Amino acid sequence: MRQTWDIPDAYLPAAGERPPYGHEAVCILNASSRDAHIQLDLYFEDRPPIKGIELTVGAERARHVRMDEPAGLGGVIVPRETPYAIRVTSDVQVSVQYSRLDVTQPNYSLMTTVAHRKPA
Amino acid sequence: MRQTWDIPDAYLPAAGERPPYGHEAVCILNASSRDAHIQLDLYFEDRPPIKGIELTVGAERARHVRMDEPAGLGGVIVPRETPYAIRVTSDVQVSVQYSRLDVTQPNYSLMTTVAHRKPA
Amino acid sequence: MRQTWDIPDAYLPAAGERPPYGHEAVCILNASSRDAHIQLDLYFEDRPPIKGIELTVGAERARHVRMDEPAGLGGVIVPRETPYAIRVTSDVQVSVQYSRLDVTQPNYSLMTTVAHRKPA
Amino acid sequence: MRQTWDIPDAYLPAAGERPPYGHEAVCILNASSRDAHIQLDLYFEDRPPIKGIELTVGAERARHVRMDEPAGLGGVIVPRETPYAIRVTSDVQVSVQYSRLDVTQPNYSLMTTVAHRKPA
Repeated sequence: MRQTWDIPDAYLPAAGERPPYGHEAVCILNASSRDAHIQLDLYFEDRPPIKGIELTVGAERARHVRMDEPAGLGGVIVPRETPYAIRVTSDVQVSVQYSRLDVTQPNYSLMTTVAHRKPA
Repeated sequence: MRQTWDIPDAYLPAAGERPPYGHEAVCILNASSRDAHIQLDLYFEDRPPIKGIELTVGAERARHVRMDEPAGLGGVIVPRETPYAIRVTSDVQVSVQYSRLDVTQPNYSLMTTVAHRKPA
Repeated sequence: MRQTWDIPDAYLPAAGERPPYGHEAVCILNASSRDAHIQLDLYFEDRPPIKGIELTVGAERARHVRMDEPAGLGGVIVPRETPYAIRVTSDVQVSVQYSRLDVTQPNYSLMTTVAHRKPA
Repeated sequence: MRQTWDIPDAYLPAAGERPPYGHEAVCILNASSRDAHIQLDLYFEDRPPIKGIELTVGAERARHVRMDEPAGLGGVIVPRETPYAIRVTSDVQVSVQYSRLDVTQPNYSLMTTVAHRKPA
């Protein structure tokens, strides 16, 4: 049972000079009893998509996937300060939420939304 | 297959004096293999709607449509600091998220939500 | 065709001493060709609900209903700094989004979400 | 009629040194005429879930459940500054929204989203 979730407003903000660093996270809950094999596809404004980033969320585990950590993205480096969008595909039922921390000012700002689940 | 998405709380905040300027964006992901022909309709509290702003989101592309850039809106100038709402219509399946950056204070504030997709 | 939308996290923050005042808004888009007769019901933690606040959103109009303005709520005064929840009922198809501006600090903070539409 | 709601991005931020303390809340609206018996299950990145936290939301009442108050969670102490996720299950129809207040800086930041309701 393949599931698709979309995050139309993705944007990796500037990191800033000290922690907490500006970042965004794709947060995935897998409450099922089977590991979830996840695929991330990244879509841009003016270039072809980067498809097929693979990761796993274990059974009964949650992961906050940081988009500024290439090691967790099969080595893909997401460009900073570039508008893009993320599609999340899973082979088991999961839930997806997107959050961003922006620190490009003295005080930072948070935003979040549950992603859009494409109707089956 | 026509799709409708609603953003009931739209508001173009004051621009401020230096970048990043206060703005809002309608973010659209078109992960399909066909170009999406998008129509934006703007609804106000006390005047008739502005309907029929047309734009395109290419196949496998994402766009963050800035509501403070008339060039991308067929020349329509959205009034600043005026409560309104946005309806997004597409001829192919897309996903829509709305975000706002407010800078009318020393430190800015972000907010976001996936738009409401009208059931078919 | 009656529609129900829920906002489980409502909270009217302190007003602060100068504009922009802390507030929250229930934003309603009525893109239909008929006026929408809206009812707001307010639910609290430890007291009975306040039901039956009535207001209208005209055909092809949007309203950002301020919860700190009793004149627009049939005279009901929403208590400040009190957790509550809002149910919105409409007799025509509308869309609902909730936003809050908190100013109880030098720099303010915004948050928003599309409300939950109860499945028919 | 059992209902399931997911909050993939939960994170109890640092409390800070004075009110308002950093916190997160699971906000539940029970507009029905029957008490709602709620179960919270917490899922982590690298340890087994904590399942079966029980609480009640009375008929026609709303509760903003603070995740930093063990007394309201059957004594469970949620670890601070640890990514996790929350599943909410209810025996009557409710609505769920998640909000976080982060105060780990001079000015705080708010974020919110309606939780994801698992399709029946």
